[in-house]
Amino acid sequence: MKIPSKYIENAVEQLSSLPGIGKRTALRLVLQLMKRSELEIRQFSDAFIDMKLNVVHCQSCGNVSDSVICSICSDEKRDHSTICVVEDIRDVLAIEATQTYKGIYHVLGGIISPMDGVGPMDLNIQPLIDKARENKIKEVIFALSPTMEGDTTNFYLYKKIKEFEIEVTTLSRGVSVGSELQYADELTLGRSLINRQPFNF
Amino acid sequence: MKIPSKYIENAVEQLSSLPGIGKRTALRLVLQLMKRSELEIRQFSDAFIDMKLNVVHCQSCGNVSDSVICSICSDEKRDHSTICVVEDIRDVLAIEATQTYKGIYHVLGGIISPMDGVGPMDLNIQPLIDKARENKIKEVIFALSPTMEGDTTNFYLYKKIKEFEIEVTTLSRGVSVGSELQYADELTLGRSLINRQPFNF
Repeated sequence: MKIPSKYIENAVEQLSSLPGIGKRTALRLVLQLMKRSELEIRQFSDAFIDMKLNVVHCQSCGNVSDSVICSICSDEKRDHSTICVVEDIRDVLAIEATQTYKGIYHVLGGIISPMDGVGPMDLNIQPLIDKARENKIKEVIFALSPTMEGDTTNFYLYKKIKEFEIEVTTLSRGVSVGSELQYADELTLGRSLINRQPFNF
Repeated sequence: MKIPSKYIENAVEQLSSLPGIGKRTALRLVLQLMKRSELEIRQFSDAFIDMKLNVVHCQSCGNVSDSVICSICSDEKRDHSTICVVEDIRDVLAIEATQTYKGIYHVLGGIISPMDGVGPMDLNIQPLIDKARENKIKEVIFALSPTMEGDTTNFYLYKKIKEFEIEVTTLSRGVSVGSELQYADELTLGRSLINRQPFNF
């Protein structure tokens, strides 16, 4: 695919550097952008620069934020002794959407994944251990993805904080609400049998 | 989904304004961008502004180009009396990739689509009629998509140029090379029977 304009080629190159966007998709998007006015293009471009220059990580939980302490950590109505450990902001948004959690978060910024070259040192782990040492936490909830990497990270964190007297919990595993039992995978179904709960009605 | 940073929210808004990119995908891409350096973000952003400021439409064929006359129209080895009418640059790239066409192009910049509010006046049609009037063209090849809108546009163009002595052709319709006959749709298969060709061996 030889694009007859080096500027379009560069724009396609940049867009297709994003994960999951190929050259053809990028060209389609770029041609759509071309139809916009210069002002609109500037608004489009400036959004990313403004974001890079203004967004910081909350000094308390590591979540992305516009201020030094994010809106969740600075909310005094929340329970600051319960900390939910998540991978990134998308998990925070997902849990906040449930409206069932009133504690605060700790955002790792990734999970331990030797395959991708991500080790404990690359993650936002030390502040959590500091908080635990300072006796500020009653409960830590591990809410990482139920994958090999998630479990590895859980185990690493557990080893680091088990010396302090903190209750450590994890999200319950089981069949999804509203799903058909026959389509649940055997591992999940097995776990949900072992961890069966008292029937509430 | 309430994003705790208005800058990230704005970037997500901008990215998800592109066709086919939803809010969730946009957030994933934006978080990926966040991990890049300020320089990389500037290169990303500048690519779109540079494109908008520098890319023009070829005065001869309407294709996007870095110069007043595009590289295809300024190529003297090409047959300037044969013009292939296409919708946009992607079709030019597709036809160029076949390496079987030596004429030049005429890029409409869209097709007539009343549903989307695109009429003949919104397209790059007049320069083609001017060229036809000036007796510069021997053959016009309609290479628009075989859809209702494509056929409408073909018919409109045909009416406009039929008064001049120009051969008007269109891409042949038929079963795809390498495809299984049983999977061809009946319309295509029917057309390919009616337009059957002498067997070459």
